[in-house]
Amino acid sequence: MASMEVLWGDLLRHRGEFEQFHLKKAFDEDPYRFNRYSIEMDGLLTLDYSRHRITDKTLFLLETLLETAEVRERFSDLLAGKPLNATEGRSVLHPALRGSVAEDLTLDNGQVVAKDVAVVKARLYAFAKGVRAGSICGADGQPFRDIVNLGIGGSDLGPRMVCHALQGWQDGPRVHFVSNVDGAHLGDCLKGLDPARTLILVASKSFTTQETMANAMAARRWIVRSLGKEAVGTHFAALSTNRQAVEEFGIGADRMFEFWDWVGGRFSVWSAIGLPVILALGPERFEDFLAGARTMDQHFAKASFRQNMPMIMAALGLWYRNVWACGSLAVLPYDQRFDDFTAFLQQLEMESNGKSVRMDGRPVSRPSVPVIWGSAGTNGQHAFFQSLHQGSDMVPCDFLVAAKPNHADDAQHQLLLANCLAQIDALAFGRDTGIISEQMAQQGASEADIERLTPHRHFAGNRPSTLLLYEQLTPNMLGRLIALYEHKVFAQGIVWGVNSFDQWGVELGKDMAHHLLQSLQSGEKSESDPAIFHRLMAYRS
Amino acid sequence: MASMEVLWGDLLRHRGEFEQFHLKKAFDEDPYRFNRYSIEMDGLLTLDYSRHRITDKTLFLLETLLETAEVRERFSDLLAGKPLNATEGRSVLHPALRGSVAEDLTLDNGQVVAKDVAVVKARLYAFAKGVRAGSICGADGQPFRDIVNLGIGGSDLGPRMVCHALQGWQDGPRVHFVSNVDGAHLGDCLKGLDPARTLILVASKSFTTQETMANAMAARRWIVRSLGKEAVGTHFAALSTNRQAVEEFGIGADRMFEFWDWVGGRFSVWSAIGLPVILALGPERFEDFLAGARTMDQHFAKASFRQNMPMIMAALGLWYRNVWACGSLAVLPYDQRFDDFTAFLQQLEMESNGKSVRMDGRPVSRPSVPVIWGSAGTNGQHAFFQSLHQGSDMVPCDFLVAAKPNHADDAQHQLLLANCLAQIDALAFGRDTGIISEQMAQQGASEADIERLTPHRHFAGNRPSTLLLYEQLTPNMLGRLIALYEHKVFAQGIVWGVNSFDQWGVELGKDMAHHLLQSLQSGEKSESDPAIFHRLMAYRS
Repeated sequence: MASMEVLWGDLLRHRGEFEQFHLKKAFDEDPYRFNRYSIEMDGLLTLDYSRHRITDKTLFLLETLLETAEVRERFSDLLAGKPLNATEGRSVLHPALRGSVAEDLTLDNGQVVAKDVAVVKARLYAFAKGVRAGSICGADGQPFRDIVNLGIGGSDLGPRMVCHALQGWQDGPRVHFVSNVDGAHLGDCLKGLDPARTLILVASKSFTTQETMANAMAARRWIVRSLGKEAVGTHFAALSTNRQAVEEFGIGADRMFEFWDWVGGRFSVWSAIGLPVILALGPERFEDFLAGARTMDQHFAKASFRQNMPMIMAALGLWYRNVWACGSLAVLPYDQRFDDFTAFLQQLEMESNGKSVRMDGRPVSRPSVPVIWGSAGTNGQHAFFQSLHQGSDMVPCDFLVAAKPNHADDAQHQLLLANCLAQIDALAFGRDTGIISEQMAQQGASEADIERLTPHRHFAGNRPSTLLLYEQLTPNMLGRLIALYEHKVFAQGIVWGVNSFDQWGVELGKDMAHHLLQSLQSGEKSESDPAIFHRLMAYRS
Repeated sequence: MASMEVLWGDLLRHRGEFEQFHLKKAFDEDPYRFNRYSIEMDGLLTLDYSRHRITDKTLFLLETLLETAEVRERFSDLLAGKPLNATEGRSVLHPALRGSVAEDLTLDNGQVVAKDVAVVKARLYAFAKGVRAGSICGADGQPFRDIVNLGIGGSDLGPRMVCHALQGWQDGPRVHFVSNVDGAHLGDCLKGLDPARTLILVASKSFTTQETMANAMAARRWIVRSLGKEAVGTHFAALSTNRQAVEEFGIGADRMFEFWDWVGGRFSVWSAIGLPVILALGPERFEDFLAGARTMDQHFAKASFRQNMPMIMAALGLWYRNVWACGSLAVLPYDQRFDDFTAFLQQLEMESNGKSVRMDGRPVSRPSVPVIWGSAGTNGQHAFFQSLHQGSDMVPCDFLVAAKPNHADDAQHQLLLANCLAQIDALAFGRDTGIISEQMAQQGASEADIERLTPHRHFAGNRPSTLLLYEQLTPNMLGRLIALYEHKVFAQGIVWGVNSFDQWGVELGKDMAHHLLQSLQSGEKSESDPAIFHRLMAYRS
């Protein structure tokens, strides 16, 4: 089997064959390019990757790269509970949360994974049903109208994004999310709420996360102030594994929902961390959400490369990142409620693969994850799309759009669809100077104006994008889409050779903040504090 | 004077002198580095640029670059009303909106700029005072409780960001912003509102912007349904220049607030587009906001290079973009309410300078604007900061933080400050392997674990960041900060030679969407529509 470095060399040489390549020409020459470079799943979801700078040879080389890296084998290892998170000595089993591991999978510590998942899920569902029905209620007997989730990073981005994206499917209490240690975040959220009708979830595996615990203590004071200390147990629940700290806070064991060290924060929306989703949408829709992800798990494990959505998306990402030296990927959901998906993916991709050392401690041979950014279309069209169309850099884009909206206004949804499809074609095909001059002449522009303005109105095109088109953003579809990106990130991590499941890079800042806080509290600069400390203290006085 | 290309060559060669450079060493060797590389303004605002890969020589070369490009001269031209937006034949006079042009500046068409600005501002203030006092009220005599701003791009991002950032200063009606053509955006906003107490602003210079007008028509139906057709004039106002279209919509001339072709969308928050800000904060605070920007205008025009904040920030951006080939800039406000600043800057920077041709139609000689991205700290620390610390690419960062919060919870603000300062030092100084091994040994780790984990826990450091520290995010300070970035973008645009004030790159997508919409409405694919059209129609049926 060819070594990875040889394959990278082949890919770099292959890039040379693209000097005359243009997407416009590629489509003109092949009327079946869409059929050749698209994947359909269950009559519900299409990955259209025809607007990429690729040929069959590109895909063949990339397939070989992913095969040589043994992506499939490593995914089998993952599903078998092997400790893929080697630096922390842990298994990586978030697929177990959606029923994608063997029923009898047993870890070295004796844990039967599926059984424990089922037990906690039953408790979560019973709790959510009680809250939704009003049988679990506030201290004075009123049903809960508002849920406030206190969590940060993985304990925030997943459930926040899912709840917002599926807003049209919500029929439970209203959900709110507070993550930032900035006191304004919690303060602004609580302003409109009635403590007597508010249930607060503290989402922190360790129950020590600085931001979350600062907000939890403030929220606790808010509850105690109006309902008394004895109301804490009734108005709080914990998504955590630290039973002692949870109980010290005043939350009983029956209100603590646990997950395990084989669930990473950025993969935890399928676990107890998903409780806000279960409360807002109900257990049945949460099951649909899990089922969607399970479908994608099976697809990733079984579909051939050319029919495998996560594999293709991973391959294209590697192609642009490591062969074309693209520094970023724009993610553009054409769906206002799905706007948070980009922030969710920033964590999923950049925390997973933002590494410079391989699993074995050696430096990576090629740049790992690019910057992930973007926002909801059509908003971006009136902001940064100028740069996507006419800027210096090639920025590959992922467009996401639903054929049918989650609301009744189909006329405006047609506008959304028209804009989305127009953008991908505009990026790919551009507009050449001949057409511009002709149009300007028809509009009566002078020769001088035509000559002067044509370069500014020219669109070179040949800018790549992926389109994910789905029938509707149902809970099931959202489960598929998240799992699709999870597996894409996994496959890329395997090729880069990094551990996609640790996050040592967050440690140093935490340590240093701890020291700085002491100085700020005492007002005394220590030797290691930055020189601006004195200025800061002057501004604060 | 040396030509630009010679200077770029000097800068590229100068980069070679940084092979042994490390920020840790630079600070160790120079205890006054902060004093050397920071700028203070009025005891209120500090730009700390000491954590950059620069020496005095770097700054000298960059200063020469900006001087040679004649940045100062072009800014004088701008203030004198010269048509700097040459492709559209327009002046660029947003500084006039904050009193930074001569009182008697008169354009070729006879317009006395300051006079017209004063007239519209007086009308805006009178209207806002009336709404805030309740003398201008709904059709049934109730005061307006909610303002809904319908606008997209520049008619949305500026006022939205300012209102949110200054939430602690709001004492007027509640303001809401709807931009997306996705019907869910307007639907979700109107759900909680009472038409009788809602004033709707339609912000579109041309009054033809597709997204905004679709939302305006839907909002109009919402008003008419519950209050009747005759209520339209009372419950709407227009920020526009198209009097005929505004009147046809049912809005009287007294409710139309105009601005001029020398106010670009992304620079329009200082104009009538700022009406939501004036309504929420009142005219007095809006005046403070304008005054802050005016202070920065004067600073930019007069301060020497080493004391000039916009010049230094522009220079550093050019240094990383064009000499170090950095593809992005992360903007990280440590302030939850200031989270939208990044989206605002995406437009300001990427729409202004996301160009590949120079003013004269020739291609740019060097890459123009990088990708601008980021989000509020501390949230990002638990998401993408992993990649900032340990990822492959160097991503320069702008950190922004207030010494004092806009709310009462100073204890949590200390946490925010500690985290912000910790991150910039962690990025700059890193943590070397010796310290890690030592710490691990102290914690009782085995030799094998130390050897295995040290590479993963290593932080190379030497990663550059800028810190903007300000006393408090007052209206005045926010005016300064926005103008600071405006001038930074201006200076960079002059060096790259692009027209920072047009946006031809948004045209093609608009044209193509128009065609696609017809096909979607008829259900008939035209030849130019993408192949996925049939799939889309199948999903929609």
